[in-house]
Amino acid sequence: MSNGAVPETNPFLYDGPDAAFLKDFARLSTFGATAGGGVDRQAGSKADGEQRAWFTQLLTKNGFAVSFDQIGNQFGLLELEVGKPYVVVGSHLDSQPTAGRYDGAYGVLAAAHAAFCLAAEWQADGTTPRYNLAVVNWFNEEGSRFKPSMMGSSVYTGKMTLDTALATTDPAGITVREALESTGALGEGIGPQAAYCAEIHIEQGRSMERDGIAIGVVDSNWAANKYEFVVHGEQAHTGSTVIADRHDALLGASMLVVAAREIADHFRDGAVHTSVGQLDVYPNSPVVVPARVNLLLDLRSADETLLEEADQLLHERIKQIERSAQVKIEKAGSHCWPVTPYQFEGVALAEKVAANRGVAHARVKTLAGHDSTNMKDIVPTVMLFVPSVEGISHNEHEYTADRDIVTGLHMLIDVVRNLCDGELDPK
Amino acid sequence: MSNGAVPETNPFLYDGPDAAFLKDFARLSTFGATAGGGVDRQAGSKADGEQRAWFTQLLTKNGFAVSFDQIGNQFGLLELEVGKPYVVVGSHLDSQPTAGRYDGAYGVLAAAHAAFCLAAEWQADGTTPRYNLAVVNWFNEEGSRFKPSMMGSSVYTGKMTLDTALATTDPAGITVREALESTGALGEGIGPQAAYCAEIHIEQGRSMERDGIAIGVVDSNWAANKYEFVVHGEQAHTGSTVIADRHDALLGASMLVVAAREIADHFRDGAVHTSVGQLDVYPNSPVVVPARVNLLLDLRSADETLLEEADQLLHERIKQIERSAQVKIEKAGSHCWPVTPYQFEGVALAEKVAANRGVAHARVKTLAGHDSTNMKDIVPTVMLFVPSVEGISHNEHEYTADRDIVTGLHMLIDVVRNLCDGELDPK
Repeated sequence: MSNGAVPETNPFLYDGPDAAFLKDFARLSTFGATAGGGVDRQAGSKADGEQRAWFTQLLTKNGFAVSFDQIGNQFGLLELEVGKPYVVVGSHLDSQPTAGRYDGAYGVLAAAHAAFCLAAEWQADGTTPRYNLAVVNWFNEEGSRFKPSMMGSSVYTGKMTLDTALATTDPAGITVREALESTGALGEGIGPQAAYCAEIHIEQGRSMERDGIAIGVVDSNWAANKYEFVVHGEQAHTGSTVIADRHDALLGASMLVVAAREIADHFRDGAVHTSVGQLDVYPNSPVVVPARVNLLLDLRSADETLLEEADQLLHERIKQIERSAQVKIEKAGSHCWPVTPYQFEGVALAEKVAANRGVAHARVKTLAGHDSTNMKDIVPTVMLFVPSVEGISHNEHEYTADRDIVTGLHMLIDVVRNLCDGELDPK
Repeated sequence: MSNGAVPETNPFLYDGPDAAFLKDFARLSTFGATAGGGVDRQAGSKADGEQRAWFTQLLTKNGFAVSFDQIGNQFGLLELEVGKPYVVVGSHLDSQPTAGRYDGAYGVLAAAHAAFCLAAEWQADGTTPRYNLAVVNWFNEEGSRFKPSMMGSSVYTGKMTLDTALATTDPAGITVREALESTGALGEGIGPQAAYCAEIHIEQGRSMERDGIAIGVVDSNWAANKYEFVVHGEQAHTGSTVIADRHDALLGASMLVVAAREIADHFRDGAVHTSVGQLDVYPNSPVVVPARVNLLLDLRSADETLLEEADQLLHERIKQIERSAQVKIEKAGSHCWPVTPYQFEGVALAEKVAANRGVAHARVKTLAGHDSTNMKDIVPTVMLFVPSVEGISHNEHEYTADRDIVTGLHMLIDVVRNLCDGELDPK
């Protein structure tokens, strides 16, 4: 399976629940496995359906009641006291194309094993925690096949309407509703009521590895301005049309891609990140000057003042490019969010747990969006990171060592136990 | 049909064969007609099949025997003397996506009407010319759906093997063989033996319109270096990966697109044309730094020394881009051709005919490739241009006035009559 890209998970070096967790993680990594050692299980794909069916079995076998809500979020419910709200813990199993095994999947499986462990504890003690417990696999966090990202948690938190989400189509014209139906993942209702939320995830950056940190306690997310631009030119013959007559949409788009990088380079110490991940050319024929290019451009920073400055630079560059490439650049969509903190009391709780366990920890910020970024806007939410080797992510070589994912699992168990016991309830 | 993009052909201002030609041209323009006033009938598409069926009817009704060869070239044969070789005259009916009505289609229909006119003349005179006459609709000149361009004439002239051509696939994985079978255009054999060739086409540039020239006599083609490049980067997360760690294939590709334009701008008087018409990003997901970009880049010039200089500049820029974008740029394919002349005696014949008709004419070069560019390498070939309004081509607004396409038809009749009479035979 791994093809040597990254080391295999080795359950034989561990005992009991840790070994069971690593064994299940190795099994989970076989769904949508790629020849290059990673996975390809985009939201609503066959591989996504298969891993969800397997996850249903795993939850059911451990005494959790499985249900899907109306946008395909998959819940494993442990309702110990009828009518009480839930601590919701999880992440997402869907992936980018040719992705790594850890992004999202680690957090879902760690949530499940943390929940199994706590359920066993409560049964052994004969105690009932203050809150019920739900494991969640959010639908379509990645947003590669169906845009935008974080779709399942956006509908759950009321940031996106159900109708808009279900009607969203992939490039082949298949709707989210059709993809969910075909993978047996279209349920009813709005899922369990959350009181608190927790998520664990790989860092996807290299700061924790560099600083020797085993657990990152996320205290806020970077601000981001995400834009969809359409560059409008004019179709022409690539051979016979004189250069001065051309309105080359791809030239304009390429200038915009280069400008985005130059804007990132303009700021010191990596304070601003920019990127263009998606770009589509029309008509995309070898001998036709392109008439239109659609592209998605992001600006991100932990400092909203710098982000504003970067945004101004971008819009100045757009005007220059319109003149020099003789094109029109239309802003067809935007999705912006500010720096928002995770609740302070959750950060403090995670720090206390890490200190009690003697785990090297530090506060970090998340540059990427996560389902917990949505959840923290409706309930107190704890977000934990484990290190990523060399910061590699969205790549088949994405890797986190077994000891780190096991440490993360132990941390998550303690955090979720505290949340279930009402540790963050108003005193 | 035209949606106001360009004026409609108006047969009512003309009489007899000219009116019949314009009427048939208006009918031809309905196949694959787009809302924007152009056509979309890529090689082997449903619309291509429909126009070919209509063209078969037109040829048959006028006494020509229709056959398809093994690569789907469509011939209308007037075999007046069994076993004699043919004067082959025509162009191509296939188009780019959202293309104009004139590119290729004008030349095929003008060839047919020229042939009908000459057949009637010979019948009225009771004479038999020295050569038989074939009208041709070459398969896949455009190369948008199936690459490369000029496929039918390349197989006919032995520049491409039949097996390679038939096995070529479109982006959906459909082979040329399957597309030809599904449109009833897969025949047998190698088509008629050519003695001479003639083609008429729109200029697709603006030099003739600027200079008041009604007929361009093409004396050579521009040299071209066409490259397929693959830019290799590394997948990464667009949010969390620090800029210094990125190997962004799309950044490298964009720098290459910008460099191509800068190379064109480096030369004076439009002596070098450059372009990138096609560019594909992988995995093309909003939050993934692209791992790979495939693109097609062309350099063209009438001056081989300048082309060589442009090529050197390009290769220097590639090395710089590899360093600055931290990517690898692989040359996956190339297709280069020198400046080659059309036979001098053919040029002289066309000039004599134009002078006799009192038509404003001049020698021009073709910047684009044409089927006649292939044919001239096996038999003496005459290539004629009519003006393009504002040089617009590969665009729904492509337009040539009725008076110009009718003048071109008259020129073609005279040229083909001379070729059939053996005017260019060794004395």
